[in-house]
Amino acid sequence: MRKVRGSCRKNCGVPFRGGNMTDVLIILGSESDMPIAEKAKQALDELGVLNEIKVASAHRQPDLLDKIIRESDAKVFIGIAGLSAALPGVIASKTKKPVIGVPVNVKLDGLDALLSTMQLPPGVPVATVGIDNGKNAALLAARILALSDKKLAEKLNKK
Amino acid sequence: MRKVRGSCRKNCGVPFRGGNMTDVLIILGSESDMPIAEKAKQALDELGVLNEIKVASAHRQPDLLDKIIRESDAKVFIGIAGLSAALPGVIASKTKKPVIGVPVNVKLDGLDALLSTMQLPPGVPVATVGIDNGKNAALLAARILALSDKKLAEKLNKK
Amino acid sequence: MRKVRGSCRKNCGVPFRGGNMTDVLIILGSESDMPIAEKAKQALDELGVLNEIKVASAHRQPDLLDKIIRESDAKVFIGIAGLSAALPGVIASKTKKPVIGVPVNVKLDGLDALLSTMQLPPGVPVATVGIDNGKNAALLAARILALSDKKLAEKLNKK
Amino acid sequence: MRKVRGSCRKNCGVPFRGGNMTDVLIILGSESDMPIAEKAKQALDELGVLNEIKVASAHRQPDLLDKIIRESDAKVFIGIAGLSAALPGVIASKTKKPVIGVPVNVKLDGLDALLSTMQLPPGVPVATVGIDNGKNAALLAARILALSDKKLAEKLNKK
Amino acid sequence: MRKVRGSCRKNCGVPFRGGNMTDVLIILGSESDMPIAEKAKQALDELGVLNEIKVASAHRQPDLLDKIIRESDAKVFIGIAGLSAALPGVIASKTKKPVIGVPVNVKLDGLDALLSTMQLPPGVPVATVGIDNGKNAALLAARILALSDKKLAEKLNKK
Amino acid sequence: MRKVRGSCRKNCGVPFRGGNMTDVLIILGSESDMPIAEKAKQALDELGVLNEIKVASAHRQPDLLDKIIRESDAKVFIGIAGLSAALPGVIASKTKKPVIGVPVNVKLDGLDALLSTMQLPPGVPVATVGIDNGKNAALLAARILALSDKKLAEKLNKK
Amino acid sequence: MRKVRGSCRKNCGVPFRGGNMTDVLIILGSESDMPIAEKAKQALDELGVLNEIKVASAHRQPDLLDKIIRESDAKVFIGIAGLSAALPGVIASKTKKPVIGVPVNVKLDGLDALLSTMQLPPGVPVATVGIDNGKNAALLAARILALSDKKLAEKLNKK
Amino acid sequence: MRKVRGSCRKNCGVPFRGGNMTDVLIILGSESDMPIAEKAKQALDELGVLNEIKVASAHRQPDLLDKIIRESDAKVFIGIAGLSAALPGVIASKTKKPVIGVPVNVKLDGLDALLSTMQLPPGVPVATVGIDNGKNAALLAARILALSDKKLAEKLNKK
Repeated sequence: MRKVRGSCRKNCGVPFRGGNMTDVLIILGSESDMPIAEKAKQALDELGVLNEIKVASAHRQPDLLDKIIRESDAKVFIGIAGLSAALPGVIASKTKKPVIGVPVNVKLDGLDALLSTMQLPPGVPVATVGIDNGKNAALLAARILALSDKKLAEKLNKK
Repeated sequence: MRKVRGSCRKNCGVPFRGGNMTDVLIILGSESDMPIAEKAKQALDELGVLNEIKVASAHRQPDLLDKIIRESDAKVFIGIAGLSAALPGVIASKTKKPVIGVPVNVKLDGLDALLSTMQLPPGVPVATVGIDNGKNAALLAARILALSDKKLAEKLNKK
Repeated sequence: MRKVRGSCRKNCGVPFRGGNMTDVLIILGSESDMPIAEKAKQALDELGVLNEIKVASAHRQPDLLDKIIRESDAKVFIGIAGLSAALPGVIASKTKKPVIGVPVNVKLDGLDALLSTMQLPPGVPVATVGIDNGKNAALLAARILALSDKKLAEKLNKK
Repeated sequence: MRKVRGSCRKNCGVPFRGGNMTDVLIILGSESDMPIAEKAKQALDELGVLNEIKVASAHRQPDLLDKIIRESDAKVFIGIAGLSAALPGVIASKTKKPVIGVPVNVKLDGLDALLSTMQLPPGVPVATVGIDNGKNAALLAARILALSDKKLAEKLNKK
Repeated sequence: MRKVRGSCRKNCGVPFRGGNMTDVLIILGSESDMPIAEKAKQALDELGVLNEIKVASAHRQPDLLDKIIRESDAKVFIGIAGLSAALPGVIASKTKKPVIGVPVNVKLDGLDALLSTMQLPPGVPVATVGIDNGKNAALLAARILALSDKKLAEKLNKK
Repeated sequence: MRKVRGSCRKNCGVPFRGGNMTDVLIILGSESDMPIAEKAKQALDELGVLNEIKVASAHRQPDLLDKIIRESDAKVFIGIAGLSAALPGVIASKTKKPVIGVPVNVKLDGLDALLSTMQLPPGVPVATVGIDNGKNAALLAARILALSDKKLAEKLNKK
Repeated sequence: MRKVRGSCRKNCGVPFRGGNMTDVLIILGSESDMPIAEKAKQALDELGVLNEIKVASAHRQPDLLDKIIRESDAKVFIGIAGLSAALPGVIASKTKKPVIGVPVNVKLDGLDALLSTMQLPPGVPVATVGIDNGKNAALLAARILALSDKKLAEKLNKK
Repeated sequence: MRKVRGSCRKNCGVPFRGGNMTDVLIILGSESDMPIAEKAKQALDELGVLNEIKVASAHRQPDLLDKIIRESDAKVFIGIAGLSAALPGVIASKTKKPVIGVPVNVKLDGLDALLSTMQLPPGVPVATVGIDNGKNAALLAARILALSDKKLAEKLNKK
């Protein structure tokens, strides 16, 4: 149930940086959330931001998720999940990097995922964007990265 | 922020079983959830069910929580948490024992905790009881234990 | 409107125990809830847990429901119902065995069934799982039974 | 936990009808719902409608409730309950008399009781009035009784 | 936008009573609510209860509605409406007969109609049944009429 | 239960216009909504807009309400009501003047009044403002009147 | 992403007034809201009210929106938007003309747009109509304009 | 209604950087949101992150808000607002820096602010944290800044 997709290293004009590097790691709670992840990936690719997609359920594959987070050199994490969406909160409890959460509409119009993603206790911040809004997760990641990446900042300012 | 309370080994007529044994381990996401836990403890004590209360936040103390679950010999777990209540789901992902979840009203009348506790994905079952309803968590644990404990079953049937 | 389906006595490797025995009795409030019940049955069959499905509305067939509960030797009950889902609570008021409730989405995205199933008063515990989540009801029942069934516990731990 | 209050046979100008007769039987799910029941009783007393209050939880005292309903000669039942308010639906499943339900605000602003009381399946009608609105339950009962009670109809028309 | 449908005077075994008589007057806020009204009509016809359907919006045809209510000899009114469903409350403010309200799902899963129909102020009772539940409105009307109609009571008791 | 308060004819610098004239008629569904009405009145007085407050329940005093609306020469109506807030819609069905609705929080945080006030069917427009927001009702009325009142427009533009 | 549609200057019997004049300016937050705007436009055209439709997102085109509002000679604005519908509030903060808001159902049955449009702070009034209810926005605008337009008032009164 | 509070330049061990520099600009929609802002400020001060608090309503002071955003050299913005909380979205539409939104509970348990802050359209990302959760807004800002500030990263990792 694990899936890895390489980032757009060739066709988006970003210089090769070698190794296992990525700027944004997109983690999905379930394969079924892939359409939302694709929207995030497309927006990141258009901006030339290195990114990767992995699938690991916070509830069903806690050890795999733990390993993915620890081994990653990503600067920003995007967690995408529906229902009782614990994934973004779990990521935020295991790294001190910024974590963005995207609630997915599976039941109850996505209200369950929305509240699970956003109502985290003080001490575990997750940056929640709108229901199914993979694009905004990507743009938020880009704004964060652009603070220390002038070229990316210029691209964002031109939009 | 960690707290351990011994079960009622002395004053509730349950024979000493030695060691670190307990039948029900109650885990709280936060000290502030203690009043709900006390209601569960009181109901378990009245039935003579060995129990223990520990505090470990799923989000802020994931390693402590992991250790508590792995080291416990409890037959049933009760997870009590408010807001984005990931605690019961995290417990259920790390043990194959029955896990009972109690959503606590902190914000939104407890709707966030209710949905976070209950709307878990297929594969990670949590037995959710009503908002702030520590007593029902205890009674559910007792019904589960009574399946292989005739004396406890008799106590329940007399109620 | 009553329906009885035999458990998987032949094709799931469970030794015949004779008589009318079953471990899990799944009761539906309405024939229309059968797809949710089938998900529960399939998960139980895969684990070799003896189970049976019966249909009896808490509101429209209270006497039939009463009879089914009293005559059953099941160790765990699963009540599946939509709308004002009184079924699981009624079962829990007539037996001291563990009762699992599955709210079904008929109206209001299932919010009515969810609250009816879960918000029971102190004294009547129902183990509520997610909306339409028949599979988790089955897995929860299996975890409960596994406390006194080593083979089942092993199966669960291998998953 | 059972409580019976006689109707206003003396001080409200209604001719004595002898025996155990009452026109409206008000059943509460819990003693704590008494303030709502009192509002209903007061409105019925003012209209000279014979009434009685009894307490019996649908979940915790199903047999008592059953007995109360079967033995009653009331023409209209009022069921008052909070949380997962099964009481009115249970009454409606055991009598063919009109049943009025009053959802009580205990948790979630009363949304759980509201949906539990109102969203009954086709075949089991309950006449739901507003949250905590004991007075309207009484007035609705009076309108129903007035269809075959000219004096009561006149009283209502004068209001 | 006004529609009148005769009751089942011929094919349901009810003796002709002449004139403009009807026992239950079903009023719809909009033609689009007709499928819900048909469910009520069918259930009333099966029980041999004289009924009639009229369409009059509380908001757009207040004078027509007023006239319909004043001229009717119905014993029970059923008001069916969606959105901000003022119809049942308006009927209840213009007659002292029992009024049953059926909230219709047009927007927001029917939550707007549900709250508009049910949350009336003390003094204006409406007997609300479930969302889109025309059948229960009919059965509730029948229970009310059966208090002074032994044959109808017998039919209900046989069901 | 009827209350009439004169507008600020003396102390707010508006020239006397004689007779029964008022620009904004504020109608309350209940005396208990007066604090919200006072906020509206104060904001209108500060702008020198002639206004009057009357109390008439849409449900309990339909004839009084009808009379008030027909006899009024107000240019804009403000309807303030809680629960199943039919008042603004009823006003809008009896006049072709602009009608502003203010939902009042009585139960359910005001959600019932909000939906009742706003979700009117096509053909009956009500200008809904926020829950308990009497001030915005007044400012909206002032903006409407300012379209044909240059001095009022100037006052608004200076704010 | 900007779109301008001329009002019905030719075929609706309104005398030409020259220049850039319009009575009602309909602004959409997104092209996808056009079906709702068309309903408003049609109702305005039928009443002979000059109107125009423009598209400008409050969030993505704040400067364009600002320019449109400042350059417009419209007497009434209608803002139509879904999701976090800031558009009507932003218009109301930049003009002192009456502003009508139409929440559009994009997610959560339109609950997000409804609350964003209506729950504005004291000082910034927006006249909110029902979800997707473009027609009522038009009728409300017509009622407002009719206060100083006798012919329009006559048309409304004939309806 | 405008308020400026200097950051903790003296007593929190951060080297003076001169001029008008700040790392995090906290903007409040209303003075009444200050307790939430103080929680954010305190958490930033403890981490030695330069910050400043300003008050500017998106709806009532759009020009002031515009000026504050344009003149600020902050790297991260935090917008705190209740009701129809447009503030964070407006900030995000006027800068390409990361914007964090904190919904404040004023009405409806904060559900209106939550949805207004989070449900922004694709293209305008706001990082929403939990209701009233000023601390998490601060910690999220710190995580973002720590990507290019090793000392801050070390502080966060030690927590």
